[in-house]
Amino acid sequence: MIRILVTGGTFDKEYQETTGRLSFRRTHVPEMLRLGRARLPVRVSTLMMVDSLQMSAAQRRRVVRACRAAAEKRIVVTHGTDTMAETARALGPRVPGKIVVLTGAMVPYAFGSSDGLFNLGSALSFAQALGPGVYVAMNGTCFPWNDVRKNRAEGVFQRRRRSKA
Amino acid sequence: MIRILVTGGTFDKEYQETTGRLSFRRTHVPEMLRLGRARLPVRVSTLMMVDSLQMSAAQRRRVVRACRAAAEKRIVVTHGTDTMAETARALGPRVPGKIVVLTGAMVPYAFGSSDGLFNLGSALSFAQALGPGVYVAMNGTCFPWNDVRKNRAEGVFQRRRRSKA
Amino acid sequence: MIRILVTGGTFDKEYQETTGRLSFRRTHVPEMLRLGRARLPVRVSTLMMVDSLQMSAAQRRRVVRACRAAAEKRIVVTHGTDTMAETARALGPRVPGKIVVLTGAMVPYAFGSSDGLFNLGSALSFAQALGPGVYVAMNGTCFPWNDVRKNRAEGVFQRRRRSKA
Amino acid sequence: MIRILVTGGTFDKEYQETTGRLSFRRTHVPEMLRLGRARLPVRVSTLMMVDSLQMSAAQRRRVVRACRAAAEKRIVVTHGTDTMAETARALGPRVPGKIVVLTGAMVPYAFGSSDGLFNLGSALSFAQALGPGVYVAMNGTCFPWNDVRKNRAEGVFQRRRRSKA
Repeated sequence: MIRILVTGGTFDKEYQETTGRLSFRRTHVPEMLRLGRARLPVRVSTLMMVDSLQMSAAQRRRVVRACRAAAEKRIVVTHGTDTMAETARALGPRVPGKIVVLTGAMVPYAFGSSDGLFNLGSALSFAQALGPGVYVAMNGTCFPWNDVRKNRAEGVFQRRRRSKA
Repeated sequence: MIRILVTGGTFDKEYQETTGRLSFRRTHVPEMLRLGRARLPVRVSTLMMVDSLQMSAAQRRRVVRACRAAAEKRIVVTHGTDTMAETARALGPRVPGKIVVLTGAMVPYAFGSSDGLFNLGSALSFAQALGPGVYVAMNGTCFPWNDVRKNRAEGVFQRRRRSKA
Repeated sequence: MIRILVTGGTFDKEYQETTGRLSFRRTHVPEMLRLGRARLPVRVSTLMMVDSLQMSAAQRRRVVRACRAAAEKRIVVTHGTDTMAETARALGPRVPGKIVVLTGAMVPYAFGSSDGLFNLGSALSFAQALGPGVYVAMNGTCFPWNDVRKNRAEGVFQRRRRSKA
Repeated sequence: MIRILVTGGTFDKEYQETTGRLSFRRTHVPEMLRLGRARLPVRVSTLMMVDSLQMSAAQRRRVVRACRAAAEKRIVVTHGTDTMAETARALGPRVPGKIVVLTGAMVPYAFGSSDGLFNLGSALSFAQALGPGVYVAMNGTCFPWNDVRKNRAEGVFQRRRRSKA
């Protein structure tokens, strides 16, 4: 059984007609799992729906507590990309024996050209195949929690250190 | 470097206006990698564009030869779902030391409700994380080549033996 | 009140996963009206769901009878493009005082790159603005029933006579 | 020949990955005309790309001047919905002999669930079928410039006076 913990982020943003703004309603993860015809046992829980730039320290601690408390050993966390690496570092040493994979999207799933579905498939697979640890799955690959950063200028995730394994 | 070998299948079918039929033109894999904002080194080659129900024994042998001859150790093969398990079995004992992951789609990527993007993200991730072997990545998970079948009635992939690991 | 009579055609075709073929289920017209946020009074009736190449003489007569019998003065008929001009000619002299606009799509609405939504908006507008007569609304404009043909090579509708009004 | 004058609005907004905001780049109108397989002679000009809430009096006068100066008799103006009725009133008495149809979208075309394509097909058709005047084409129908308002609470366009023609 894989657990998916939803925290929001660009992944789940929607266009709100009345205000012309982007906002959150319900997560799209169940709909995306249906689209991907995912047949593995998955449990989806929405912890919060926030833009990760607005994620408070208390909210970040809630994410860590939820991962620690989860009955499942394999967890995917959907998260805004702006502070995803920060949450990965908060989790890194705190979930021994578990496989936690954080993912998100650069473009909301509700839009036509989103990386959301690709990233969800990627994260779910890494969560099944990797050994215990905390990872960020973005841009088609995965990064260990202690060697990842978001390159804001280019909008992609990279290892911190120049030498790539 | 990951190699993607394209063989066609529902994954790449398109609607042909003039005839009202489904047919193949160029593969959509490069476009899907762009949509997923994939940044890992990938080389895409189109071996053929066939509906896997029409894949001949000679064509299936070509797929095996291409996997064996590839410089890359990690390979994703896009394939029609109808005989994907058959090609997986042809590959099983023949690509020692390599990680080969076959994937496809139940609905053409060109359509609005396709599992293609999810499956490609999934397959690319399994290709990076698994150890040597041949696998089918469908429905959000992966199956070993010697224990997979397509359940045609339900349109999903399953293990052959009732007892799941 | 505008009446929409659905007869099927490429407009409403869907991809059927189990068979890999295109087939009909329920019409998408109500969903398209919602997407277009249409607020005019409209009544949708499904007469049949056929590929217009397979429309029999009896079925074509049913379309004519339904248009004649409709309480509404303004009618949109969704139809396969292959014999749309033929049905327009069958209707031409038989619906005095009514405005009947036939439309369809070159690519199924269920696909990503369909002209269906554009054509439906177009046909509904012509049905409101034109005077009594029978018309084909395709390719962003409309044609009178007695001067229209489908150019099969190019997949577009044109006037029969070279001199355009 | 129909002229399309683009002023921006929600119709043409896009999601900007780097900032997470909605912004304008190039208009999508040519792409939408291709999708709709429009074959009538159309000339597209971008006057400006603004959210209509930010349209200044000077910019609104530019729209009026452009409609007056256009060689074409039939004009479609794409516009933000928030002050579309205001621009319609500015145009109303100032474009004698011309057919000017304003349209827009409640959801950006770049999103999956947009009314943009439907509205463009609708506006182009009204522009061809109506007699001289200025109109707003939204929600599947059209309104005369001197009897239209945007009902902000419901996000739809309506006649001002309760008695509908």
